[in-house]
This record gives sequence, structure tokens and C-alpha cells, in this order.
Amino acid sequence: MALIVQKFGGTSVANPEKIKAVARRVLGKAMEGNQMVVVLSAMAGETNRFVALAQQMQDFPDPREMDVLLATGEQVTVALFAMAVKGAGHDAVSLLGDQVKIKTDTMHTKARILSIDSDNLRRYLDQGKIVVVAGFQGVTEEDDLTTLGRGGSDTTAVALAAALAADQCEIFTDVEGVYTADPNVCNNARKIERISYDAMLELASLGAKVLDIRSVGLAKRYKVPVHVRSTFTETEGTWVVEEDDQMESMVVSGVTYSKGEARITLSAVKDTPGMAARIFTPISQAGIVVDMIIQNTRAGDLTDLTFTVASSDYERTIGMVEEIVATIGAEKVTGSKGIAKVSIVGVGMRNHAGIAAQMFSVLSREGINIQMISTSEIKVSCVVEEKYTELAVRALHDAFGLGNNNPAMAE
Amino acid sequence: MALIVQKFGGTSVANPEKIKAVARRVLGKAMEGNQMVVVLSAMAGETNRFVALAQQMQDFPDPREMDVLLATGEQVTVALFAMAVKGAGHDAVSLLGDQVKIKTDTMHTKARILSIDSDNLRRYLDQGKIVVVAGFQGVTEEDDLTTLGRGGSDTTAVALAAALAADQCEIFTDVEGVYTADPNVCNNARKIERISYDAMLELASLGAKVLDIRSVGLAKRYKVPVHVRSTFTETEGTWVVEEDDQMESMVVSGVTYSKGEARITLSAVKDTPGMAARIFTPISQAGIVVDMIIQNTRAGDLTDLTFTVASSDYERTIGMVEEIVATIGAEKVTGSKGIAKVSIVGVGMRNHAGIAAQMFSVLSREGINIQMISTSEIKVSCVVEEKYTELAVRALHDAFGLGNNNPAMAE
Repeated sequence: MALIVQKFGGTSVANPEKIKAVARRVLGKAMEGNQMVVVLSAMAGETNRFVALAQQMQDFPDPREMDVLLATGEQVTVALFAMAVKGAGHDAVSLLGDQVKIKTDTMHTKARILSIDSDNLRRYLDQGKIVVVAGFQGVTEEDDLTTLGRGGSDTTAVALAAALAADQCEIFTDVEGVYTADPNVCNNARKIERISYDAMLELASLGAKVLDIRSVGLAKRYKVPVHVRSTFTETEGTWVVEEDDQMESMVVSGVTYSKGEARITLSAVKDTPGMAARIFTPISQAGIVVDMIIQNTRAGDLTDLTFTVASSDYERTIGMVEEIVATIGAEKVTGSKGIAKVSIVGVGMRNHAGIAAQMFSVLSREGINIQMISTSEIKVSCVVEEKYTELAVRALHDAFGLGNNNPAMAE
Repeated sequence: MALIVQKFGGTSVANPEKIKAVARRVLGKAMEGNQMVVVLSAMAGETNRFVALAQQMQDFPDPREMDVLLATGEQVTVALFAMAVKGAGHDAVSLLGDQVKIKTDTMHTKARILSIDSDNLRRYLDQGKIVVVAGFQGVTEEDDLTTLGRGGSDTTAVALAAALAADQCEIFTDVEGVYTADPNVCNNARKIERISYDAMLELASLGAKVLDIRSVGLAKRYKVPVHVRSTFTETEGTWVVEEDDQMESMVVSGVTYSKGEARITLSAVKDTPGMAARIFTPISQAGIVVDMIIQNTRAGDLTDLTFTVASSDYERTIGMVEEIVATIGAEKVTGSKGIAKVSIVGVGMRNHAGIAAQMFSVLSREGINIQMISTSEIKVSCVVEEKYTELAVRALHDAFGLGNNNPAMAE
């Protein structure tokens, strides 16, 4: 008998029929003798509906009240799901974030979990009930409802699995697992069977949207084995687990990309202490997320500084930068939208020299100019013109041997 | 400065525009210097939508989970309402049943309030906030969500007013107050300015659906002045208050009716101790509500017994009665659907003889046969053929002088 936490996203519980189908699936697992905790998201579309309603009330909806509103989405699904299980003849009970006592900080709409009291969960599990928990939500010390932000239900699931020392945490989604590349770009992309927490962290942060990055961090910290798989098939998905020898034999685990970025360059800035802070503090205060930052030294005490932001923030950011430059001095400010970041990730890169160089030569061979480079221990990212994204991903995917055994056939 | 509790029903907050209109109205009252507690129902239609969803999950939806589901309706309106108030520039905070600590028993879907902790409410009121409370919901000692059943938001409002010793409790609805009769039946029906708790209790129990009967009982017990009025006008409505001299001058306060009833008669039943229990225990266990019960003695040790149930329960009930009669013995079982109960109510009846006789003669003058009679200290009810309902109501309304000063003009 195992203790299993299963999480189903909004598309998996999008309507009454799907809720009943998922209930049957969970029930099957319970009938095998497992203790089951089910974490659910709101029905697909509900969150957008609530946001639209809120915006009719207040231009910038109050975050505390936004959380009260949003939390109803999961509350509806857990109640319906518990009924569906009971309708199928098995006992079940729904629990909301505050009933589980998922305590969070007070950062409404993007709260972080501080602690979980597993007593209630264990009590109901010991009574033989399937415990159905509302994902995405928690409660502050002051009893205010909070939500955990996009992808929050993944975090709830992994946090519950950690608190219960569950045998596994299964994240059910609308794809079959984590792939070596986006299957829409590489038609020979291969599902990864096992991937380390660290590699998954890099993939998640680089744009592979299968699993929320915070949940991967939690899983790593508490050593929770996470199984990402499809709601709509029985096929095994991808296991996200501790690094093992088998993985190291794979130098590169996957290729990922992120479009819709923009680049801004400040040329010949005076390189004095505090210069970077004077540039980036106002930008971050305006809520603009800066991704890559690269600084090159020029002759003299001058430096060139380049960074990337989301395309949608480009105009606003360049306006701010021009104001800043007027006070700190620089030769010129240039920039462009329409760039993309292409990355290779793999824990095996730690022990292999020359992976970055190999990436650069693959891109060069395809005639793709590299505008910026950024590396970590297990990742190399290159910024290229957006139109080359798919070409770059496919070339790297093939060059590092990530495709199916017979890529020629797949193509 | 007064402390005012205002309750708005589902039709008053049926869409974003109406929620904003109500928020402006509450805000106006707050700007006059009053401390405001607002109790809201779910947006009209939501409860029916949830019931339909639940029935797709389970034939008889689990009551605990039904409450989890239903409670989201009020949660949505209080969050949106608090945003609307904030959007209009005043501070507000929403509180759910469990955040107010409205403790109830464990009778899911029709729970009763056991206690209210007013500390949270007072704390927020003292901070100058408009406090927006989800009506209809509470929480058990075990932290399970409960709902209070139909009309539960009225009860929440009066209970909060009692707990806070509020100066008044205003119940906003889609009619202008309590009338001497249904204005759809009597076009000269007059709005009652002041009515006693006792008379309102009788009216509420007899089918006047303006105010939930439990809330009237609470208001009486805690001496909460209740003002029933329209959301859509500024007109004064009806005050439900302690009995005073002025009221006693009115012998009859109102005429009310209830259609859709059915009558069942057991003729010549053996009149032995425990007979009534043998008849009515199985009926009540089947969840059938019996309204009037009348028993007449015949010659010998035989008795005739007649009672009424809702028309929709008629076939089921008569089937049960025939089974029971097979064991206890009776001459025959007869019955009919299509009857109605017409009642006159008034605290002044206590001090006036002959009111019942006057009612009987009014009905007789109109050629209406009385099938059953039931009386209390401040009420007389007659069961008549359903088709005579409107005729009876109008005749009684006129005979007891309840209409507007110039009924001829109104007609």
C-alpha cells in the first residue's frame, strides 16, 4: 500500500464529465489499496471569468479580495469531485486550503507556503477516505485566504506530498510528460523517462511549461519523486527524481526556447560602482522582469551593457532607460524586439567540456548569429533572431542526439 | 452615528452593475457617519446552477459537499462587493462565515446558528471599514462549512445585528415591504408601516415570502428592529418591531394564503392512544411536511382525522396512509388536491372576540365552503377550494378594512 498524491489541472476537470472520468481513475488507484490525496485546480476558464468580473469592480482589484474570489474556483471542483467519488460508492472528503491549514505568507495572489499541518489529512486518510484538496490556495496567520499564483496547484501537490512523506506525487496534465524539445517544433522530440530535479528546474525556468518551477524546487528540497503524465492516457510519463548515474550518461537532456523577448543595449556607459543599481532598480520597481544581463568591458572606464525583457515591456523599458541615461551618461541606447532565447540543459554538462562550443558551432553552421550568451553549470542559453528559433531548436536537438532512434523516419 | 446591518438578496446583486449600485447605496449610508455591516446572498441563479452541477455528480448529493459548493456563491459576491466599495474609494473587507466565526450545528444544508464571535467584525468596523459578510453560511466546531437553508441570509443578517447590538437591521429585497395582502391578488393592498414580531412570524409561516421566519424569531428574541424595504427605491418599507399600543388598534394586520396544498382524511379511525403517532411518524420520516392536522370525535371510540400536505407529496403520502390504515383499521381514506389555505393575522385579535366568526361569514357570503379551520391566538386559517383563493383574499382584505383609504379608486 502506497500513499499517493495526484494533481489534476484545469483542463482535466473542465466539465462534469471530465470530473467524473478523473474520479473513476483515482478510484481505480484507491481500489488497488493505495491511500489517495487528490489536488485539483479550478475548472478551465473559471479563473479568467473571475478576473474579468473583478476588473468590472475595480481598475486594479484588491489583492486580498481577488484571492477570496479566485479561491472559489477550486472550492467548486473539490466539492463536485468528492460528490463524484461518493456517487461511485467510495468515501471521500473535500478540504480547502484553510481546512488543511496550508499556512502562507501575506503576499496575496502570489503567496508562498510556510507550513502544512498534516493532521487533518492523516485523520481522513486513516478513515479510508479519498481526500480531495483544493489546490492553489492557503491561509495566513490572520485567517485571510491567499492564492499561490500561476501553477500554484502543482506547488500544493508537491507540498502535501512532502508534508505526508508520500511515496509519489503524480502531476496529471494535458501532455504525456517532459520532452527533449517542444514536439510542435521537433517532430522527433522524445519523452524523457527520468530527469533530475536540477535539470527540470532549468527547463522549467527556461519556458517548458509542464511543471511549475516552485513545485520542482520543493520536490528537490524534500526529495519528493514527481511523476508528470497525461490525464487522458495510461502511458508512463516523466519521473522527476534525484540525479542518478544513468542520467549522467546523457550530456544534454533537452532543448528549450522562449520567444517574445526584447533586447536593450546601453553603449559606452561609465563603469562606476553602483551604475547597474541605478539602471535596474527603477526598472524592477516598475514591475518589469529583466531576464539576461550581460556586461562587456570596453577600453578605458567604459562598458557596454545589454539585457532582455519581455517584448510587451519593451517600449516602457526603453523609455525608462533613456531617462536614466540622461543622468548617468552613455554613448547611445539601442534595442530590438523579435529575439528569442534558445537553451540546452543537462546535468551531464558538468562533466563534459566543450558542450557550449559545440552549441555555438551548430548554430553557426546553420547561419544563425548569436546575439547574447549566458551559461550556468547545467545550461547554455543563446539569444538569436526570433525567426531562427525553430531552426535552432531542431539543429541542436539533432546534433545532441536527443531525438527518437530513427529521426529520419520521424521526419 | 449608528451601527447598521444591511442585507441584500440575490436579485439585488444579480450582476456586476447591480453590485456596484448596491455598493454606492451602502457607501452613501457610510458617508453619513454610520458603521456598516453588509450581508450578501449569492448572485441570483447561482444556487440553481450549483444544484444542477451537483446532481450530475451524485443522485443525492452529499450534504457536506453540497455546502462546500453552495458557499462559493456568497464568497463570490462578497469579494466583488468589497472590490466595488474599494473602487469607489472607501475601505472594505469581506468576511466568510468561518472568518466571522458563525458557529452552527452539523445539519448540513439547513444548519442552525449556535454562536457568533463579534470580535473580528468589531475590529474591522473600528478600523473604519465597511464589513461585507457572506450570508447563508457558517462553520461547525470541526471546521466544516455549513449553509443555513433557504432564506439563510436573512438569518445571518439578524444574527449579526443581534451579536453586535446593532441599531437596526435592514433587509433589502425586490418588494417595498410587507403588505396587507399579496398586491398581485389585491390591487388595493397597503404596505404595513409597523408590524410586531409575533404577527410577522405568523405571516412568514403562512406564506408571505418577504422575510425568512427564522430571522423573525431571532429578531424577536434579541429585540432587533428589522426594516424590510426595496433595493430599488428609497421609500421606507416595513418595520418589524416590538408590539406597541398603536398596533393593537389594528385588529387584523394582513391576509395571506398558501396554494398547492392537498388534504387527506381518514374516516372512522379507532381512537386509541398512540394512533396519531403510528400515522405521522412514518410520514415525517419520509421527509414529508404535514401542515394542518384536525381531529373530530365521532360517536363511539371512532374519530375522523384530516391533515394537509404539499400537493407534490400527495400521491406518496396517500400511498403510505393506505398501508398504515391496513394495520390500524379505518372506514376509508379520502383526499383531494387543489386546496388552499387562507389566513388572517393580527396581534389585535387577542383582545377582540368574534374575529373568526366574522371571517367565516365573509367567506359564506361569497359562497365559499370552508373545509378545515385552524386557529392560534393571533391567526385564523381556513382551507378552501383552491379556485376560490383570490376571491377569499380580496373579500377578507376589504371586510377587515385593510386596503388603501380609497379602495374604490384603486380598483
